[in-house]
Amino acid sequence: MVLRFVTTNDGKWLEVSLVFAEHSVRVERINARVLEIQSDDLAEIARTSALDAYAKFGGDVVVEDAGLFVEALNGFPGPYSSYVFRTIGIDGLLRLMRGARDRSAVFRSAVAHVDREGKVSVFLGEVRGFIAESPRGTGGFGFDPVFVPEGSERTFAEMTPEEKNLRSHRAKAVRELIRNLRSIA
Amino acid sequence: MVLRFVTTNDGKWLEVSLVFAEHSVRVERINARVLEIQSDDLAEIARTSALDAYAKFGGDVVVEDAGLFVEALNGFPGPYSSYVFRTIGIDGLLRLMRGARDRSAVFRSAVAHVDREGKVSVFLGEVRGFIAESPRGTGGFGFDPVFVPEGSERTFAEMTPEEKNLRSHRAKAVRELIRNLRSIA
Repeated sequence: MVLRFVTTNDGKWLEVSLVFAEHSVRVERINARVLEIQSDDLAEIARTSALDAYAKFGGDVVVEDAGLFVEALNGFPGPYSSYVFRTIGIDGLLRLMRGARDRSAVFRSAVAHVDREGKVSVFLGEVRGFIAESPRGTGGFGFDPVFVPEGSERTFAEMTPEEKNLRSHRAKAVRELIRNLRSIA
Repeated sequence: MVLRFVTTNDGKWLEVSLVFAEHSVRVERINARVLEIQSDDLAEIARTSALDAYAKFGGDVVVEDAGLFVEALNGFPGPYSSYVFRTIGIDGLLRLMRGARDRSAVFRSAVAHVDREGKVSVFLGEVRGFIAESPRGTGGFGFDPVFVPEGSERTFAEMTPEEKNLRSHRAKAVRELIRNLRSIA
């Protein structure tokens, strides 16, 4: 079996391809956009995107949706992290956090796989952490320069992809998928 | 012909029903959620929602999608205005605008109609204005308390629904739909 991972995001592809390689799972990239719905529920977004990918590209497709949920901001930017990053950016997020005592946040990931029969499975991963006072690092993408995972002093952007994968929401969700594929194989 | 306007938003229904009544167009409300996609393009969001409404409820359905596009924030919150309002709210928007010289913004609306044959038409309306320094008024909904339309000194929330309808993006888009229905009737 060769999985096909659908994403237009190079950073995301780099991270997930490393996790698949760790576990010797063969995967190809499909660089294409798929339907993305508006919802507060990442799992529902990923599920719908995966079914759209299945309709377009057939079975054994995988998609991933992720978001940064900041406690003091009622979960904002959540599922719309990519749009928020493109518009108000890290500077906007830090402005919103100015004076906030609670800087805790969670990065969440939902990975959805559709098998050859059209059956969808969704796997979740998350990592708790804090919003830094200012951006640090040049790795990763999106809000990585201001996210410090619990147990670390570095931001995700100060880590190599391999280091980020040891802790990240996305790597955890991908590993859940791999565990599941192995258990049914 | 009786149109069916699909929305779960009471404020939206009040405004559009007044515009339809002005023009003696019969309309009923369907209080239901429909598919809403992620896109930077309101017309595309409204079109997709309308097709979903058509699949669920049949022909002569109408949906509306709107957003507040703030110049200094690269169009944020745009199509995600409802989510942004629910999370960081007016206070968050004003924080992001602190110190901004350019307070100009546009409220945009896309109204999509599907006829009995499944043909979709989308009508746009917009109103330019400014983000107020602080919220005023209790009418309208969402970001209305901080939006002052050009040519007015009051916010949308300081107007009655009828007054808001004289200027609003939503009323303009609904009137475009009515004009179109009349021209083909």
